[in-house]
Amino acid sequence: MYAVIMAGGRGTRFWPLSRDRMPKHLLAITGTKTIIQQTIERIRPLIPERNIYIITNKDHYDEIRRQCPNVPEANIIAEPMGRNTAPCIGLAAAYIRQRNTDGVMAVLPADHLITDEDRFLETLVVADKMAQRGPHLITIGIPPTSPETGYGYIEEGEPLTSIDGYTVYNVGSFREKPDKITAEEFIQTGTFYWNSGTFIWKASTILDAIGRFIPDLSEGLTTIERAIGTDSEDNVIREVYKSINAISIDYGVMEKVEGPLLIKGRFGWNDIGSWDALYDVFTKDTGGNAVRGRVITFDTHGSVVYSPDKLVAMVGVDNLVVVETDDALLICNRNACQDVKRIVDILETKKLNEFL
Amino acid sequence: MYAVIMAGGRGTRFWPLSRDRMPKHLLAITGTKTIIQQTIERIRPLIPERNIYIITNKDHYDEIRRQCPNVPEANIIAEPMGRNTAPCIGLAAAYIRQRNTDGVMAVLPADHLITDEDRFLETLVVADKMAQRGPHLITIGIPPTSPETGYGYIEEGEPLTSIDGYTVYNVGSFREKPDKITAEEFIQTGTFYWNSGTFIWKASTILDAIGRFIPDLSEGLTTIERAIGTDSEDNVIREVYKSINAISIDYGVMEKVEGPLLIKGRFGWNDIGSWDALYDVFTKDTGGNAVRGRVITFDTHGSVVYSPDKLVAMVGVDNLVVVETDDALLICNRNACQDVKRIVDILETKKLNEFL
Repeated sequence: MYAVIMAGGRGTRFWPLSRDRMPKHLLAITGTKTIIQQTIERIRPLIPERNIYIITNKDHYDEIRRQCPNVPEANIIAEPMGRNTAPCIGLAAAYIRQRNTDGVMAVLPADHLITDEDRFLETLVVADKMAQRGPHLITIGIPPTSPETGYGYIEEGEPLTSIDGYTVYNVGSFREKPDKITAEEFIQTGTFYWNSGTFIWKASTILDAIGRFIPDLSEGLTTIERAIGTDSEDNVIREVYKSINAISIDYGVMEKVEGPLLIKGRFGWNDIGSWDALYDVFTKDTGGNAVRGRVITFDTHGSVVYSPDKLVAMVGVDNLVVVETDDALLICNRNACQDVKRIVDILETKKLNEFL
Repeated sequence: MYAVIMAGGRGTRFWPLSRDRMPKHLLAITGTKTIIQQTIERIRPLIPERNIYIITNKDHYDEIRRQCPNVPEANIIAEPMGRNTAPCIGLAAAYIRQRNTDGVMAVLPADHLITDEDRFLETLVVADKMAQRGPHLITIGIPPTSPETGYGYIEEGEPLTSIDGYTVYNVGSFREKPDKITAEEFIQTGTFYWNSGTFIWKASTILDAIGRFIPDLSEGLTTIERAIGTDSEDNVIREVYKSINAISIDYGVMEKVEGPLLIKGRFGWNDIGSWDALYDVFTKDTGGNAVRGRVITFDTHGSVVYSPDKLVAMVGVDNLVVVETDDALLICNRNACQDVKRIVDILETKKLNEFL
């Protein structure tokens, strides 16, 4: 089995800790290891580093090499520019198919947190077995715990088969990010799952599907596949990327293809989409504040504090996010964490590049 | 005319900027000059530095010498320990009477901000003239702008005379810090004024009053006055302070003496009793946030931010105080600024002395 770690994100929602040069997955927000290091460590019992591919971009290539020294240099691929997930996944699939015609690949975002790691691996093993049986496109659904409007949802269809105690379902439908009322209906129905962006399939299966639904991309990938290992590899990738369109694997393939499959994850999952999401991750103090760093509070509740260096004192406040870095400080309402990217917008407008 | 600047405060309510070694009046919170430097500069048109006395304590003596190089060394007096305002004022009066039997002294807190400085000096001139006419104890009342419960109030009595367009009133009564309902009644009545802790009198007049109402202190001060200028001066002060009780000039003298006088100030006054008080002092941004430092806000209103070095970004929050220093960060509800001293209590309990 191969793993493809998608590490192209920018992470503006984790400003001021994440910056252009150092997005979320390259930071040790939650522990001593960075999030991409945790992602690799999690799958290593199942997938050795020689079979792990990391798709990133030029800006982060060197840092990823530094953080992941055991992943072979040839497996770290820098896209010349971001073109959404379909080209990224297609590019990785081209490398893997060239190496192993029958290779199964697990597509994993670089920046998710997972608890119950054994169950996560269990799920990958089940999906791997299913993928080896035929040309299946398999997605991992996360049992939703709240009516989130920030995720796509996958509706469960008819059960197809059972492997190692896991049922494999047909996908009923893919649903894009819903409004609040729809999300609440999804939760009540009980047959909808969060789309975690985690997929398992043979490299050849996804490349065939791209061939049917995104022919332009498919043509480019064929050109790239032929150049892999030659002197012109980098140039060919650069030329192909100039001409292809940005498109997601969900919209480009999964929503159109017949017979995609769903396996329900039984592990803890957190895509840490914003500072607020760290409330569930950090240790709580007696006031119910999620704290990383030295924090003293008086009449303060439900806040998230990240301050590795400086003492933080909080008095009579609730529901805040506080993030202290070397050069900047963020104070945000926990309900407004999506607006942190507005600060990044303002910094860009004002050309305060030292903070980007 | 002489000035006595009372500079003995600790300033726990301005943590983390104020510390044991650096209380509020020694900090440049509001500008490039420290607050005690502003206090001296304000009165200098009327009172030359050779006539300015500063009463402080050992811990702050060197820093005050550094900040106020033009005040003669002999005029900076360190109390061996804090004993509230009556001993402090009595000590200064002893020095001044020894120098000038008829000397009039203005007692000024070191840590107040004043706007309309010309009118402030006008008030001092009027009070000086009144003090020279006889054994009057004169206090400056501030027209209240809100029903504050943190100040004492002075009730206006019958008008006594008029000087330079200012009416001098008898004091009707002194009232200690009221509860909220009483404070609101005071405001509605329209005849109550905030007690600013600013007094004008002859040194001999206040020493005579201390003699009548605080005989123990008076005896000690007489002993000190005899030792001034001798080799035993410091030792005598130290010995006397060991035996005297802590007592305020308001409780010890003003509330008991017959015929104290009131002059109403017409200047802007702010005792900056907490971070919240700086809302009226700092420049406002378009969101109505009072800001000192580089601050970017989105959907943020009515907050006070002090961050001389670090960029602060605020998202979706209201009514906060944010104070950033080299080693600590305070985030406080503007309505809870009095509780900042609870943080200092916690630091003391936890023996985190580096933050005190």
